[in-house]
Amino acid sequence: WGYSTQAQSVNYSKFGKGLQFIAADSSFSLKFSTRFQFLYSGSQNEVTQEWEDRLQIRRARLKFDGFVYSPRLVYKIELGLSNSDIGSGLLRVHNQADNIILDAVAKWEMAPKLFLWVGQTKLPGNRERVISSQQLQFVDRSLLNANFNLDRDAGLQLRHEHQAGQVVLREIASISMGEGRNITVDNAGGYDYTARLEVLPLGHFTGGGDYFNSDLLREKTPKLSVAASFDYNHNTSKSRGQLGSFLSDNRSLRTIFIDGMFKYQGFSAMAEYADRKAPDGPVVAVSDTGTPTETFVTGTALNAQAGYLFKTNWEVAGRYTTVDFAEATQLLNQKQYTLALSRYVVGHSLKVQSDMSLIQTEQEHDAFQFRIQMELSL
Amino acid sequence: WGYSTQAQSVNYSKFGKGLQFIAADSSFSLKFSTRFQFLYSGSQNEVTQEWEDRLQIRRARLKFDGFVYSPRLVYKIELGLSNSDIGSGLLRVHNQADNIILDAVAKWEMAPKLFLWVGQTKLPGNRERVISSQQLQFVDRSLLNANFNLDRDAGLQLRHEHQAGQVVLREIASISMGEGRNITVDNAGGYDYTARLEVLPLGHFTGGGDYFNSDLLREKTPKLSVAASFDYNHNTSKSRGQLGSFLSDNRSLRTIFIDGMFKYQGFSAMAEYADRKAPDGPVVAVSDTGTPTETFVTGTALNAQAGYLFKTNWEVAGRYTTVDFAEATQLLNQKQYTLALSRYVVGHSLKVQSDMSLIQTEQEHDAFQFRIQMELSL
Amino acid sequence: WGYSTQAQSVNYSKFGKGLQFIAADSSFSLKFSTRFQFLYSGSQNEVTQEWEDRLQIRRARLKFDGFVYSPRLVYKIELGLSNSDIGSGLLRVHNQADNIILDAVAKWEMAPKLFLWVGQTKLPGNRERVISSQQLQFVDRSLLNANFNLDRDAGLQLRHEHQAGQVVLREIASISMGEGRNITVDNAGGYDYTARLEVLPLGHFTGGGDYFNSDLLREKTPKLSVAASFDYNHNTSKSRGQLGSFLSDNRSLRTIFIDGMFKYQGFSAMAEYADRKAPDGPVVAVSDTGTPTETFVTGTALNAQAGYLFKTNWEVAGRYTTVDFAEATQLLNQKQYTLALSRYVVGHSLKVQSDMSLIQTEQEHDAFQFRIQMELSL
Repeated sequence: WGYSTQAQSVNYSKFGKGLQFIAADSSFSLKFSTRFQFLYSGSQNEVTQEWEDRLQIRRARLKFDGFVYSPRLVYKIELGLSNSDIGSGLLRVHNQADNIILDAVAKWEMAPKLFLWVGQTKLPGNRERVISSQQLQFVDRSLLNANFNLDRDAGLQLRHEHQAGQVVLREIASISMGEGRNITVDNAGGYDYTARLEVLPLGHFTGGGDYFNSDLLREKTPKLSVAASFDYNHNTSKSRGQLGSFLSDNRSLRTIFIDGMFKYQGFSAMAEYADRKAPDGPVVAVSDTGTPTETFVTGTALNAQAGYLFKTNWEVAGRYTTVDFAEATQLLNQKQYTLALSRYVVGHSLKVQSDMSLIQTEQEHDAFQFRIQMELSL
Repeated sequence: WGYSTQAQSVNYSKFGKGLQFIAADSSFSLKFSTRFQFLYSGSQNEVTQEWEDRLQIRRARLKFDGFVYSPRLVYKIELGLSNSDIGSGLLRVHNQADNIILDAVAKWEMAPKLFLWVGQTKLPGNRERVISSQQLQFVDRSLLNANFNLDRDAGLQLRHEHQAGQVVLREIASISMGEGRNITVDNAGGYDYTARLEVLPLGHFTGGGDYFNSDLLREKTPKLSVAASFDYNHNTSKSRGQLGSFLSDNRSLRTIFIDGMFKYQGFSAMAEYADRKAPDGPVVAVSDTGTPTETFVTGTALNAQAGYLFKTNWEVAGRYTTVDFAEATQLLNQKQYTLALSRYVVGHSLKVQSDMSLIQTEQEHDAFQFRIQMELSL
Repeated sequence: WGYSTQAQSVNYSKFGKGLQFIAADSSFSLKFSTRFQFLYSGSQNEVTQEWEDRLQIRRARLKFDGFVYSPRLVYKIELGLSNSDIGSGLLRVHNQADNIILDAVAKWEMAPKLFLWVGQTKLPGNRERVISSQQLQFVDRSLLNANFNLDRDAGLQLRHEHQAGQVVLREIASISMGEGRNITVDNAGGYDYTARLEVLPLGHFTGGGDYFNSDLLREKTPKLSVAASFDYNHNTSKSRGQLGSFLSDNRSLRTIFIDGMFKYQGFSAMAEYADRKAPDGPVVAVSDTGTPTETFVTGTALNAQAGYLFKTNWEVAGRYTTVDFAEATQLLNQKQYTLALSRYVVGHSLKVQSDMSLIQTEQEHDAFQFRIQMELSL
């Protein structure tokens, strides 16, 4: 029932940093970590007015990373285990197999601060997506992300960072398959091209804080990052680019993101704007009555959120999201208001987060959702 | 071909206890283990009278457990790898993905000997089910378990243990989804409520022996555990509650288990009784001729088994199982007689077990089955 | 972005050898390794004349091996993670689950140099197949292997090695299910019987070099291995024995392999000949016009390849493969010419390989393929 103590090998790491090993001859290192989220979520059924809820292992992961040959050659392998993560829709393009691999990527520092990434990993899209699902301020990401994010893809990324005085600049360019992770057949349509520029006018965030939510490290001076991404997914066949369902025709998608993160003394704010267009029109098929039956998901979205972390490591945060789909798609616009209460026991490694949302969907009744989630991550 | 020795890092563990690590600052620990079973099974085809047999990796697992933050907060993640373990029937409720996650659970000792379990793990049902498949006395569990066990589920468990003189008492209560592991959609019907009481009148078993089969630690004084579980699965939609196939209508299931374990000087005995009822009737659909085409599996079952472990670590064991289904289900009652011969090389970590069974099914010819299985578990 | 150094536990291993641990009481050991391949492949579409290409994680694996109880009892578990590796075709015989388990096998040295293997692993078929996909000279294996290899299977193998002067002799016999890995239902048809004899007239290769491609260890004296395998797969139901699709009728397949490996001072050559027959005829079903609609894949194939490893660890290699199917199958014969250029940064553990192939298929236009792949293996 409990935990029985006995002699164990000491690992020079600490909770939240995984198990860490380095070869005696410094020829490679390996960090191993695992994590899971246990989620309760409930919402009111619009029609029956009944409360519908569920419990589930929302995410569970295995992570392996480190360097090989030289500290300038870093690898990362991350595996999904939960059914939510690995379902592939039984599609032929996935070899009718589960999508277990999230990341499998090598990162080579070709020259100081110039990195070539080779493999499958997240594209340099909106900040909220690139932040790990372990390190969010709310129970899960926003509707902006659900509709427009670039997700993971197989390809190459070139990443550069440099500093001008206090100002940090990062430039990222990538080319990738365009249909998302774990595609095993020929590339339908063309490739996806992404570029991103980040500016940190007030210098680096403490501990890489521009890429985790909540000001857990309580920045002593204000820190800001503003960034823009541009993505051109040439002839993709999935309704949301790297995500969504395969449609019967291809379209090129053009997506712009503008996002920013600000942190200061326990206060944190993140905002994102997304704009996706299909220059040849998003709709691929219509019914006899003219209603779209197959459409790419295009339009604009805005997400803004802010939170304050009390000295007790309780945090209160609020979020506002609005999604406006392109009129041709006839998808229903949504607004969402979310209030979160979180208790960080050990940062993002051991925490309990809850949030409640009011979701306003065009032409529908307002919906209310409540969620509470535990995160445990070595 | 063989094993080549070379300098290796020493791990303060031993075979059967996995690799064990503790962080230098005692902020977390991790035990890693893996195991597999290789099974030969053969049986006589009733119709052709031919011997039909097969070889397979019956089970293969990865296990991660330890504590985080404090020894009072324990986690466990267990993953299934073999096709027998992970097949999900390609159902939508499993996101059409494999059911890789067996356990993902956190166990918090809120007060001395009072534990809150949060996540997905085995429910406090019949003892035979809760005993690991690694630690059985026979090649696999009985027909009682196959028909009536509660299996794993996502939820909360409250567990308490206390002692009155020599007598150990354990009380367990749980609330869970009711449809078994790795459900990713809304909760069909209601929740499942389980309560269990265990009494150990002669004190603790050596090394937790009330939850592994065979008296491997040769109790010097007699040890006994008797227990009863009560389960109410409100409006479940699967034919055997957490298991079985989804039916077209829901039923509430009420299950009672009474079980016990006894061990003394190499002798061990385990017995279980199960009784499952569907107060609103088990049958959901019938054919034109009135034969049930969809039914919940209800009825009673008895399993009794005993074995003696010789000084040589050879064990002989016998088992008798009878299953009587509710008449309305028109399922065929079964009796099974099993004789097992096992050689424990290193306890339940390295062993070869064989058993042969006579299976008597109502209205059918008697069937004979022979199995032999190797278990290897770090 | 980069790799941040911090105190880490030292592991007495080196890059390419995985993490290695041994229990303080020498009761077990564990080596853990992981690897992935990132592949670009392109070929010219015969009809449209367009270049079609793709990027993918071709293979990703987790590997666990070591000894338990005694160094004479070795285990190995290897798991596939990439969609290419684990797709099972959603078949009932695989329990409609992914085929994650590649190897799960115990290897017991019963007497000096006499090994009993128990579990699921590669059969002792053609050398190219038994060589790990990590340790190839080309981006992937040849057409001979694609059509006629024995692959993995569940069963028993008896392996013996002895030496007569300088000459090393190995005899291997196996019995296995015959339908390949991760079958969970009864054995369709009969078992598969394989025998293999290997002769190394010039003694052992350095570092087991008869079972990896390329002369990475630059043999100082010539080394040669010649071998022959004989396989009889009794009443298999899959078109290529352990592989292929399930057909509506069974056939017994008889396969002969003759193969050899030669290495000397950076030069390496490998050749294989395969001959598969179905004594009762390969064709199982024909269309109205007499064209086979279901057939076992029988015929002969030859693969010959050679490469030279320069002092700089660049290698140039060439390969010629020809496949002649049995006339009754009406499958189209193929010839393939491949030229490879590889850069081994750290042997087979960190390398980039490229190859280009001319593929001549009977009655079709010639096809051209280009591939480049990175391998990273702890």
